Amino acid sequence: MSAATEPLLIAGQWQPARESLGAFRASDPSTGQEVGPSFPICGAADVEAALAAAVTVADELAAAEPERIAAFLDAYADAIDADGDTLVTLANTETALPASTRLRGNELPRTSGQLRLAAKAVRGYAWTQPVIDTGAGLRSHLAPLSKPVLIFGPNNFPFAFNAIAGSDFASAIAARNPVIAKAHPSHPATSQRLAQLAHTALLGAGLPAAAVQMLYHFDNALGLALAGDARLGAIGFTGSRAGGLALKAAADRVGVLCYAELSSVNPVFLLPGALAERSEALAQEFFASCTLGSGQFCTNPGIVIVPEGAAGDAFVAAVSAHFAAAPPSVLFSQGVLDHLQRGVGTLREAGAQVLAGGAAAEGPGYRYSPTLLKVDAATFLANPRALQTEAFGPVSLLVRAAGIEAMAVLARAFEGNLTGTLYRAADGDDDAAWMTIAAALRPRVGRLIASKMPTGVAVSAAMNHGGPFPSTGHPGFTSVGMPAAIRRFTALHSYDGVPDALLPLELRDRNPGQVQRLIDDRWSIDDVECAP
Amino acid sequence: MSAATEPLLIAGQWQPARESLGAFRASDPSTGQEVGPSFPICGAADVEAALAAAVTVADELAAAEPERIAAFLDAYADAIDADGDTLVTLANTETALPASTRLRGNELPRTSGQLRLAAKAVRGYAWTQPVIDTGAGLRSHLAPLSKPVLIFGPNNFPFAFNAIAGSDFASAIAARNPVIAKAHPSHPATSQRLAQLAHTALLGAGLPAAAVQMLYHFDNALGLALAGDARLGAIGFTGSRAGGLALKAAADRVGVLCYAELSSVNPVFLLPGALAERSEALAQEFFASCTLGSGQFCTNPGIVIVPEGAAGDAFVAAVSAHFAAAPPSVLFSQGVLDHLQRGVGTLREAGAQVLAGGAAAEGPGYRYSPTLLKVDAATFLANPRALQTEAFGPVSLLVRAAGIEAMAVLARAFEGNLTGTLYRAADGDDDAAWMTIAAALRPRVGRLIASKMPTGVAVSAAMNHGGPFPSTGHPGFTSVGMPAAIRRFTALHSYDGVPDALLPLELRDRNPGQVQRLIDDRWSIDDVECAP
Repeated sequence: MSAATEPLLIAGQWQPARESLGAFRASDPSTGQEVGPSFPICGAADVEAALAAAVTVADELAAAEPERIAAFLDAYADAIDADGDTLVTLANTETALPASTRLRGNELPRTSGQLRLAAKAVRGYAWTQPVIDTGAGLRSHLAPLSKPVLIFGPNNFPFAFNAIAGSDFASAIAARNPVIAKAHPSHPATSQRLAQLAHTALLGAGLPAAAVQMLYHFDNALGLALAGDARLGAIGFTGSRAGGLALKAAADRVGVLCYAELSSVNPVFLLPGALAERSEALAQEFFASCTLGSGQFCTNPGIVIVPEGAAGDAFVAAVSAHFAAAPPSVLFSQGVLDHLQRGVGTLREAGAQVLAGGAAAEGPGYRYSPTLLKVDAATFLANPRALQTEAFGPVSLLVRAAGIEAMAVLARAFEGNLTGTLYRAADGDDDAAWMTIAAALRPRVGRLIASKMPTGVAVSAAMNHGGPFPSTGHPGFTSVGMPAAIRRFTALHSYDGVPDALLPLELRDRNPGQVQRLIDDRWSIDDVECAP
Repeated sequence: MSAATEPLLIAGQWQPARESLGAFRASDPSTGQEVGPSFPICGAADVEAALAAAVTVADELAAAEPERIAAFLDAYADAIDADGDTLVTLANTETALPASTRLRGNELPRTSGQLRLAAKAVRGYAWTQPVIDTGAGLRSHLAPLSKPVLIFGPNNFPFAFNAIAGSDFASAIAARNPVIAKAHPSHPATSQRLAQLAHTALLGAGLPAAAVQMLYHFDNALGLALAGDARLGAIGFTGSRAGGLALKAAADRVGVLCYAELSSVNPVFLLPGALAERSEALAQEFFASCTLGSGQFCTNPGIVIVPEGAAGDAFVAAVSAHFAAAPPSVLFSQGVLDHLQRGVGTLREAGAQVLAGGAAAEGPGYRYSPTLLKVDAATFLANPRALQTEAFGPVSLLVRAAGIEAMAVLARAFEGNLTGTLYRAADGDDDAAWMTIAAALRPRVGRLIASKMPTGVAVSAAMNHGGPFPSTGHPGFTSVGMPAAIRRFTALHSYDGVPDALLPLELRDRNPGQVQRLIDDRWSIDDVECAP
């Protein structure tokens, strides 16, 4: 079987799987038909070969000149842009995400732009946070882990979170760590194409050829064994809560860092003034956000808190009409469809009523009707865990609440989430309500949003695409935004009494690159003033 | 029994244990005699009461004005200084650490100074790292966890790492999180006195009275249950590897952050030029460091790599003579003595030979002879795990190595450590050797030290008292040094499109406090320039 499957990228070579435990093909979600070549489900020998190769080059990569890393990231970004037509065609076939504008206009340039921002952070040493204490003779910075980073790509961003092109990848490479990419099996040909571009760019930049490797698929047991291998430095994972928690547990036992983005329902609170001001517009905005990309976003607005009363009733009616009139959404895979059906089932069993949709749809491929559910606050509070079940897809649950204090009580019932949103009146009428509810919501979310749906995630230094457990494993880190996302894959290194010539470049007295450094409690781009 | 034991500090009140599962007293390590009052080993009801009280005040504390937090830290520091005589007498009795200079001259002012540095970081918002992206409308900073932090104090710093006065405490409070302090049972009266001072200062600052609580002792099962309670935000732990790993496992399962400082042998490499230059001075320096505080330091030089040859032989002979002539060291407790004896036993079973000491000493209390062992490089490399067993106390293992490459091979055999040291010739003769060995050692240690013993840990912004697993649980954080140590107990908060008036103070356009902020990729103390 392995002779008939596509090669893996291991130790700098495209090579057939050593042992193939099976093969798989992508399917076109709009038809359910298999498409493209066969890819190997690889076994322990290939995983070991990739890990061993990554370990072998970790020190060399850590010692690489930053300019080489930046040149690789830039060249790879250029290659992605130049190959856009092919990449978009592959990704469109494998995911059914719209070629335009989603893939071509949005996600592809976002991906190459993110790689370039990582290159910029590398050239400016922005992620290393150099700290110099001249009195104590101590200098510190963030440095490579000098160990491989294993990255699991999710299904929902074939480019921007691809294991070999996305934010985790760019972050781990910027910090000069080797990457073992585990593609998401729903878009293997897209991932293969990216891996080919990455490999070529890597060789062009003169970096170790084993710094970037690609495996397409392996079974859960092998994934857990790899996650629990102490030769690994860290894991970047975006995906289901069950899968992420299992990986995290395996990694935690041996001190492997596991940055897992797990799940989030992204509560949205509609404050009374906003509702009075623009109920119909909010209904449209919410519906569009919930069904964008078939609702397959980590930051999909999965729960909306709507005040009781006439304005709230009108909102619910308008939204229900939008959902009822919407055509079925095409999902990534049968697995996503099954998971979504289980999720909606859990919500219904816990007392949520279906206002629109609520079932898989006829037709080829994997289709589900945009679905709106509702529940009252008392029911929600009686079973908050089940009613926060993430239903990954075009599904949202409305929770009706009587008054601001009731909304604050709901806010306090939420688990950790990536985002929390409050829609407020433009004239400030809601600001007292904001203070009450935001105080309750703030510690439970990574990003607090005003009057905007959470689905847009800007690549910004001030972004937090992260949040308290169980939305991620650590509330102090973001997986999007340079240079912050890079910090996940770094170790703090302090130098004590080390002579200038033996220090890393960005910690030396002279600072020709004008790196921003914290010198004796003050950020500066100056040289360190030395005693004569 | 509970009527006869000292009260606990729970929910802002000194109160008797609800249920006492036993009582304990400190012992004077120099005599082995019990001293001071009886303290309760508390049960589940007290732990639950403390946790519930801390949860109740978490939001209030997170919303407290930073000036109140800073005022508390300063007032507490002043109270510690003013109470120095009593504190030093208590700690000296309970630990046998020298009153002067260790406790009075060094650790006490270090502790109050550390609290004041935390206050300074609070007033300047230095730990919050505000980031502003004006183009994207995003602002982020580090914020309180808004959950309690549980701190386990170690035996070896009755002030500077006390659960209610040390770096973990100052860090957690600076980040506006409530603290549940778990004293180390070897110095309960010292901890009680500190708790009284903290409690008084807290009330004076107008902070919630349950923000600081004190429990003296509970059994391991209860500790694990508490560590695994999702109401907790984080744990600060300094202690044994076995205890720390058990707590970490319990915490990891529910997403509680566990910052555990576990163990470290702190390898010291003597480069040939340094040895040729000042062998006798190095022998004296090493002996003094290894026996300082009876060797009971996390950064004790537990392994020294000595080149083979005449200069190395002379060093070994000189060091052996120092150790052989030294009087027995007094250890903190029978437990420390037992643990040390097991550690030395493990080293001997793995092939280490005793050059001096090697046994408990006669006399009252807990005494052990300063102990020097040696092993050759081949034996070390055949069993590196056993030969890296931490023997907490005045014990060190010499490893003989033939040449620079052999020293680099040894460096690569080390697990994660807090520190790694290279002694180099003052004239630069060793710098080629430095490059070779430091490259191997650097990723395995938190702090790389030149020509100085690792036992001094400065409270500096550029310190890293941390390191790769298993020396700690996360290589990106330090437990010493302001503001860096504070970051452990924070969550990243992003604000997306939030109006200026609804932002936290340090993220608003105007910056009257001249907080250092990263505005559009540039550190600045300026206001944000707004469009008119």
